[in-house]
Amino acid sequence: MSQQQQQQQQQQQHREPAAASAIQISRIMRPDDANIAGNVHGGTILKMIEEAGAIISTRHCNSQSGERCIAALARVERTDFLTPMCIGEVGHVSAEITYTSKHSVEVQVDVQAENILTGAKRLTNRATLWYVPLSLTNVEKVIDVPPIQYEKKEKEEEGRKRYENQKLERLETKQRNGEFIISVVNPDPYTVGYSQSSLIHLVGPSDCTLHGYVHGGVTMKLMDEVAGIVAFRHCKTNIVTASVDAINFHRKIKKGCIITISGHMTFTSNKSMEIEVFVDADTLIDDTQEKYRAVSAFFTYVSLSKDGKTLPVPQLVIETEEEKKRFTEGKGRYLQTKAKRQMNTQALTQQ
Amino acid sequence: MSQQQQQQQQQQQHREPAAASAIQISRIMRPDDANIAGNVHGGTILKMIEEAGAIISTRHCNSQSGERCIAALARVERTDFLTPMCIGEVGHVSAEITYTSKHSVEVQVDVQAENILTGAKRLTNRATLWYVPLSLTNVEKVIDVPPIQYEKKEKEEEGRKRYENQKLERLETKQRNGEFIISVVNPDPYTVGYSQSSLIHLVGPSDCTLHGYVHGGVTMKLMDEVAGIVAFRHCKTNIVTASVDAINFHRKIKKGCIITISGHMTFTSNKSMEIEVFVDADTLIDDTQEKYRAVSAFFTYVSLSKDGKTLPVPQLVIETEEEKKRFTEGKGRYLQTKAKRQMNTQALTQQ
Amino acid sequence: MSQQQQQQQQQQQHREPAAASAIQISRIMRPDDANIAGNVHGGTILKMIEEAGAIISTRHCNSQSGERCIAALARVERTDFLTPMCIGEVGHVSAEITYTSKHSVEVQVDVQAENILTGAKRLTNRATLWYVPLSLTNVEKVIDVPPIQYEKKEKEEEGRKRYENQKLERLETKQRNGEFIISVVNPDPYTVGYSQSSLIHLVGPSDCTLHGYVHGGVTMKLMDEVAGIVAFRHCKTNIVTASVDAINFHRKIKKGCIITISGHMTFTSNKSMEIEVFVDADTLIDDTQEKYRAVSAFFTYVSLSKDGKTLPVPQLVIETEEEKKRFTEGKGRYLQTKAKRQMNTQALTQQ
Repeated sequence: MSQQQQQQQQQQQHREPAAASAIQISRIMRPDDANIAGNVHGGTILKMIEEAGAIISTRHCNSQSGERCIAALARVERTDFLTPMCIGEVGHVSAEITYTSKHSVEVQVDVQAENILTGAKRLTNRATLWYVPLSLTNVEKVIDVPPIQYEKKEKEEEGRKRYENQKLERLETKQRNGEFIISVVNPDPYTVGYSQSSLIHLVGPSDCTLHGYVHGGVTMKLMDEVAGIVAFRHCKTNIVTASVDAINFHRKIKKGCIITISGHMTFTSNKSMEIEVFVDADTLIDDTQEKYRAVSAFFTYVSLSKDGKTLPVPQLVIETEEEKKRFTEGKGRYLQTKAKRQMNTQALTQQ
Repeated sequence: MSQQQQQQQQQQQHREPAAASAIQISRIMRPDDANIAGNVHGGTILKMIEEAGAIISTRHCNSQSGERCIAALARVERTDFLTPMCIGEVGHVSAEITYTSKHSVEVQVDVQAENILTGAKRLTNRATLWYVPLSLTNVEKVIDVPPIQYEKKEKEEEGRKRYENQKLERLETKQRNGEFIISVVNPDPYTVGYSQSSLIHLVGPSDCTLHGYVHGGVTMKLMDEVAGIVAFRHCKTNIVTASVDAINFHRKIKKGCIITISGHMTFTSNKSMEIEVFVDADTLIDDTQEKYRAVSAFFTYVSLSKDGKTLPVPQLVIETEEEKKRFTEGKGRYLQTKAKRQMNTQALTQQ
Repeated sequence: MSQQQQQQQQQQQHREPAAASAIQISRIMRPDDANIAGNVHGGTILKMIEEAGAIISTRHCNSQSGERCIAALARVERTDFLTPMCIGEVGHVSAEITYTSKHSVEVQVDVQAENILTGAKRLTNRATLWYVPLSLTNVEKVIDVPPIQYEKKEKEEEGRKRYENQKLERLETKQRNGEFIISVVNPDPYTVGYSQSSLIHLVGPSDCTLHGYVHGGVTMKLMDEVAGIVAFRHCKTNIVTASVDAINFHRKIKKGCIITISGHMTFTSNKSMEIEVFVDADTLIDDTQEKYRAVSAFFTYVSLSKDGKTLPVPQLVIETEEEKKRFTEGKGRYLQTKAKRQMNTQALTQQ
């Protein structure tokens, strides 16, 4: 590094930091941020809002020397979406810290949509978020928040009221949620019901070919994702895909469909698990509304130790006649594959 | 640009293009491609394989003048994953066309993992895919495939056998799958059961803070996604988020958890729908395995016409006492919000 | 598996591996890679180029036994984008090592766009990148680069000249100082304040190398995104990246940093716009909290009509002395590039 550069860097280090109490995040809204009609998902905006809030409050809580921390979201106040944003518009999220208590930070966020073609700007929503700084080394420890300066005395008083209100409401829901925690019904471990899983996916533009139909690879990736979760739930170790049986793509899936990918375990050998995965498509926007099975396949997973060896897996507990039938079929596939593999090995060693 | 560089450029412009019948796709494996143990998901590899297959077969089917087409995946043969790939390794996918029938293309794909630090390379898997070229203007029309040249006569004969085998198997599964299509039980339209939806998500590194806990924004985005699908299923029009009630984050969600986000409709007014969304976390890898409710919230959606006006929505059909109770509570929240909004408007107009 | 397949597999296992000094990365361009007009962002291509460069140079620097290292991007030479790529085309990035000094590797990269429907292929751009190998265990330590073999003696001599040139330029380049963007209230159209933009990005795991430092390609993609927004705001038409001036990466950016990317227009010719982009990093949670300028660069954008012709652009309205100075400097760079291009064209036509 040259001397000039060093000098320059030193100068830069003495530059004033941007005001800790304001931040703006902007980005263009892309096709994947929106639904088919081109309206940006509320969730995309909520995620941007939270990112701005996390940055500004983490920065503020680290502005004094002391233990390093990260601000964790504790609460979002009720948020209204005034008008939807559209693909191609630029979303601007401006956040500022408006109140600090001993252990929490209030951030207020404004979201504006700018049509950069016409220059028109409009407020799309406004949100209030509460953050709590947690120590980077001990996530259970809450750090003290440096106080902010208020322009006017009233501002602080208003903030305190908002703080007290949300504290009360948080306490209430905590008690209410307490009931729920136990209410999740758990099937017995190692049964089919225990590990079966499903996910829904709204088919977006980046999932599709120029025809507007889902890439086969996208479908297979989602199928493997569900199969992996089923295997993970069953044996709770490091599981990896060992093989996939032949998959046939009989019916195409169109852009805008909702697809449900569901998986359940069908068979376990000593060291492998077979999971059947279904892909069902819902043609929501067509005139002919129908639901059909688009693809199905069998995935085989194994469980690996830290040094990459296959581990024994817990045996599947069978409860119904239907499950028993599927288990027997799975065993058939397993033995057939094993036999083929042995034949191949023999053929190779004989050469 | 120096003269040497120019000369070099001219030489490069005369370089031969890569053979039309082979392609290689390579990329570095990132944290988001893998599970927590650092093993790349089988689905990530299946997606890369399919992309290579789609490129090479689309290219081949358009190599003669005639109708433009895109190759659609019809079948993947059984695939074995020999060893898992790891984060930081480079995955190389090489594809070549090995057989063509009148209407289909067989692509064989090799996947290698390269550790660019040690230089070690190993075969991780091998796959065979079948593609069918569909017209770009009429997706129902299958285009004729230009025949490839075979090095040896036997190669063609072997390919034909593989082709006949897979054709038979495809026919069989088509008949088998036929049964399933009708078997999906559909609840009555506009009931709670009709639109309720859920998705599971494996918490990956990009979802998390440096602490290793899920960003609040990621959770909210998934919640909105589920709420949107519930609203979409109910009224099948262009729906957008109108508001979100206060959300409290009582319990953190750790990296590696599986979260289930489920939503059901609780209330409809003339022009809005209220959806309750739950987030349940499963701490799979901890010693203390438990399932708990991490977050819950109410989302309000409206349906929009093409010129952005709110449309009437179909009324929710109530079937149980529990649903009735929730509907009444939802109505309470709706009326309260409406009253607040009117008060605010009055306050504004009086100023 | 049939006997034929087995034989084939054995044959494939004897295939030669690709030469260590060349790599090709290919992928289909998706909607998210492009702007609304369907033209792929220059930043998407810069990111692919840098990934290919990082793979090939890391592989080369580890090809001899010794300390393991990862190649970090040190500099990208000026890059011209000849024609934009489109959604649905396949981008092919081929990289090869063309020179090695004791501590750096020169990689030359060609990018081609292939329309797999028509078979048409065209060169879209060409880039030269310089990498420095850093020890995997001690990121401050630069490792010795194994020398490459040159086909001809002249090649080595030419490389040495390029190496000396870039070394000089790197030393010279002052990291340019510039103020953080101060938002102006309702600026007049076509002023600098009217189009200036910034975005903030929290560096996540998938942005980083195994060292935990941001990939140069990720930074360049974000820089192009901001430059694109500035250009779009200024002329509100379909704008595409035409070129990027040499970029030097003086300081690394660590995982967990917040980076602010800000851009403002510096110069307009009849048909082009020059945008200066700064990347400032904030080490939020490090003990040494500092904010520093990590990278800066000049991007040139042009505006395209529907049939791909360059359109006139609105002229930049200059308001301050500082802006006037920057405009004059920009004009200097513009005229210099134009002169070089004319010289090259003459050299070509004379041959």
